[in-house]
Amino acid sequence: MSKGLPKRSEDYSLWYNELVKKADLAENSAVRGCMVIKPYGYSIWEKMQAELDRMFKETGHSNAYFPLFIPKSYLSKEASHVEGFAKECAVVTHYRLKNAEDGSGVIVDPEAKLDEELIVRPTSETVIWSTYKNWVQSYRDLPLLVNQWANVVRWEMRTRLFLRTTEFLWQEGHTAHATKKEAEVETKQMMNVYAQFAEDFMALPVVRGRKTESERFAGADDTLCIEAMMQDGKALQAGTSHFLGQNFAKAFDVKFATKEGGLEYVWGTSWGVSTRLMGALIMAHSDDNGLVLPPKLAPIQVVIIPIYRKEEEFDAITEKVNEITAELRKVGVSVKYDNRDTHKPGWKFAEHELKGVPLRIAIGPRDLENGTIEIARRDTLTKEQFELASQPISEKISSMLDEIQTSIYSKALNFRTEMTTEVNSWDEFKELLEEKGGFLSAHWDGTSETEDKIKDLTKATIRCIPLDQKEEAGVCVYSGKPSTGRVLFAKAY
Amino acid sequence: MSKGLPKRSEDYSLWYNELVKKADLAENSAVRGCMVIKPYGYSIWEKMQAELDRMFKETGHSNAYFPLFIPKSYLSKEASHVEGFAKECAVVTHYRLKNAEDGSGVIVDPEAKLDEELIVRPTSETVIWSTYKNWVQSYRDLPLLVNQWANVVRWEMRTRLFLRTTEFLWQEGHTAHATKKEAEVETKQMMNVYAQFAEDFMALPVVRGRKTESERFAGADDTLCIEAMMQDGKALQAGTSHFLGQNFAKAFDVKFATKEGGLEYVWGTSWGVSTRLMGALIMAHSDDNGLVLPPKLAPIQVVIIPIYRKEEEFDAITEKVNEITAELRKVGVSVKYDNRDTHKPGWKFAEHELKGVPLRIAIGPRDLENGTIEIARRDTLTKEQFELASQPISEKISSMLDEIQTSIYSKALNFRTEMTTEVNSWDEFKELLEEKGGFLSAHWDGTSETEDKIKDLTKATIRCIPLDQKEEAGVCVYSGKPSTGRVLFAKAY
Repeated sequence: MSKGLPKRSEDYSLWYNELVKKADLAENSAVRGCMVIKPYGYSIWEKMQAELDRMFKETGHSNAYFPLFIPKSYLSKEASHVEGFAKECAVVTHYRLKNAEDGSGVIVDPEAKLDEELIVRPTSETVIWSTYKNWVQSYRDLPLLVNQWANVVRWEMRTRLFLRTTEFLWQEGHTAHATKKEAEVETKQMMNVYAQFAEDFMALPVVRGRKTESERFAGADDTLCIEAMMQDGKALQAGTSHFLGQNFAKAFDVKFATKEGGLEYVWGTSWGVSTRLMGALIMAHSDDNGLVLPPKLAPIQVVIIPIYRKEEEFDAITEKVNEITAELRKVGVSVKYDNRDTHKPGWKFAEHELKGVPLRIAIGPRDLENGTIEIARRDTLTKEQFELASQPISEKISSMLDEIQTSIYSKALNFRTEMTTEVNSWDEFKELLEEKGGFLSAHWDGTSETEDKIKDLTKATIRCIPLDQKEEAGVCVYSGKPSTGRVLFAKAY
Repeated sequence: MSKGLPKRSEDYSLWYNELVKKADLAENSAVRGCMVIKPYGYSIWEKMQAELDRMFKETGHSNAYFPLFIPKSYLSKEASHVEGFAKECAVVTHYRLKNAEDGSGVIVDPEAKLDEELIVRPTSETVIWSTYKNWVQSYRDLPLLVNQWANVVRWEMRTRLFLRTTEFLWQEGHTAHATKKEAEVETKQMMNVYAQFAEDFMALPVVRGRKTESERFAGADDTLCIEAMMQDGKALQAGTSHFLGQNFAKAFDVKFATKEGGLEYVWGTSWGVSTRLMGALIMAHSDDNGLVLPPKLAPIQVVIIPIYRKEEEFDAITEKVNEITAELRKVGVSVKYDNRDTHKPGWKFAEHELKGVPLRIAIGPRDLENGTIEIARRDTLTKEQFELASQPISEKISSMLDEIQTSIYSKALNFRTEMTTEVNSWDEFKELLEEKGGFLSAHWDGTSETEDKIKDLTKATIRCIPLDQKEEAGVCVYSGKPSTGRVLFAKAY
């Protein structure tokens, strides 16, 4: 098992790319910007999906499925929406291939041209709101609380595995409500669901905030978001929840008969997280030895490796391992017994470290004699001898897994705290951004001009206006104009 | 609740279309041939997915994800494969929209033309085998046992909800093996997994068989299938499993170092089932009152409806219902208490009948006095009074659900038996096909010419050569040439 991972301190970006490939998470495909999610990477995504899906259902949502293709005219119906997505749309223009007459191979049949071009969905607001028009007649049909798990395509020029790919997997919730208030509550609720998922399952502390006008979703009146801090001091937007006002209802003429007998446009929200979360998970916790996975999302939580020279030793170890495995599975711990005879223990240690298995148990003949096992923690790279008689193994392992989950979260939280700095002058802003990075908490005058100017000069953007922003009189770090509270700036993925 | 379903006996096709829409399963979208799967329909598909996914994992497969787009040149690498799919490919040619200079709206940007056109995957053999080339070096890397849940697009001219749509959802397994034997065993195993799923969960008896050469998957050496019989006497192919030989390995140069030090092409399989299964489920069991769902796939297994006039009655009923609901949920039965005060009981009865809820419980004030409930079975439309003191409600309901599952299966099996006829002359063949339909078990001379001729004359195709075909000397029902066993003919969806 040759890991050969670059060090984070030397080349964070290369470290990330190599880790994604070497840990069997994903790889680039032959199609520009499209990735292949490999089985191990996909099994982590499946665990994310399962938890998110449960949370969506617990908050009253149902899944449905809408078409991959969107007629070009639909995309154009909401002005700022098409403005936001037109530059990155994959367009289907034909529906048939044929053999070239000169025998040169298969070509697109020019006679099979579509009357209207179809866009491969970059997001589904337009096709869904065109459907909602028929689903909503009266207040009795509301709210509509629908989610979709799907692939979407945005033609990105610079792509990176998981973080920015032409095709990605995501879920997109689309809800319709009778009142503005209800839609606002839903928008906030789903941001909170995302934050809870990030913190409880991904062990990823996030700032809950609101996007500035220029960072809003194309077609939204308000965008809430969760923002996380990566180990290189760059921020990553991990999920967004949009209050759409009546914009899509108006674009697609979705009205409902109110209880009082009136006719009104409905109010909408949409919200999504994507395979980008995989990138966040990797970049937040992993180290120079490989992945570090929070136990709640690890496909394998415990790997057991036998250490032996002779066949009889192996048999005796295996017998003990079978006992332990049964105990652990009984309490829902996922265990793998790596009994391959094609690889040495040291090779296996390195491989499971690379793949982020939270706990590794090693058992040799001496352990059998002494009634012990060696337990190694992936996150801290620490080992301990454990006496099997001292405590039921299932209790021991469960409590260690809990401890790891908490500990990974705390570490990330401490890091973020350390990487969040209040700055009060433009020189300080520039200096800190260059030397340390992280979140810069600074006053801003509230204008897009200043925001754009700061972005042009430093590449830092306003990640969000934190929802827990304190009222505090101050002056804009760039323009010197008055401000009533601090916002978070950072360079971002 | 106005059902207004057409009768099967009068217009089976219209009955199907209307049922799919009225039971909130799916509807046509604005994009030709693409459907919207509505939340209720999707929840049935989710149950199917969960069971199939479990079965795939139990047989050692992992999920992964491959790109939506396939470079045109890839599709062309396997000659018979491109031949089979070229006529129905959606083609992406551009990657950007822009505002027309004459202000007429948004147009496809002619400058954003792709160097090589991309095909929206109609199936993923080519993109997956191009990936496998890098995943397989030695016999140690085999077998590769991968499945993908995805959407695919085939540009169909005549579409019908679930049965034939331009975009559909499916799973596609793609495996690679060191030996021919292993790949053949896998092909058969997955056909058996499909058959078991169809019979145990969908309550749908299927014939396990082999496709004739002309009905094989484009690029396969052998195609196994499961075939089901619908209520109108037409057959429906419910799943296929392909032995690909070394065709795709050769097209994409996928070789492996053998244990013995040689270098050989790997052997492949692929297998898939799709949202078409939803069509089969609906058409096999449902009746003129609506859906009939097997309990194992019903999103709601039991609906409870209160019958009351006064508010106090409702409260007392609700208290009893809460007890019953808790008991049922404890044993894993999914229950819905339909306590809406906006609709009358009769309306609710009809709605849940339409939606195929297997059991309906009604409780009124007299039931409370007598300690009874009324239980109605959807499949038989029969009712019984049940004394709550006579047996724990969870036992009663569980056993009724089991009984329904078995009974729906038996009914479908009896129907199929009745609709399978041995025919021995061409006149008999034509007459039976017209008057009765169903499977015609007949001798065939084994040639594609005869097969095509029969298809031209009668629209009947050879659905399969049953795997349990008996050796029996005979003469071809059409050509009179010798034959060694019977095959199944039918008109099919």
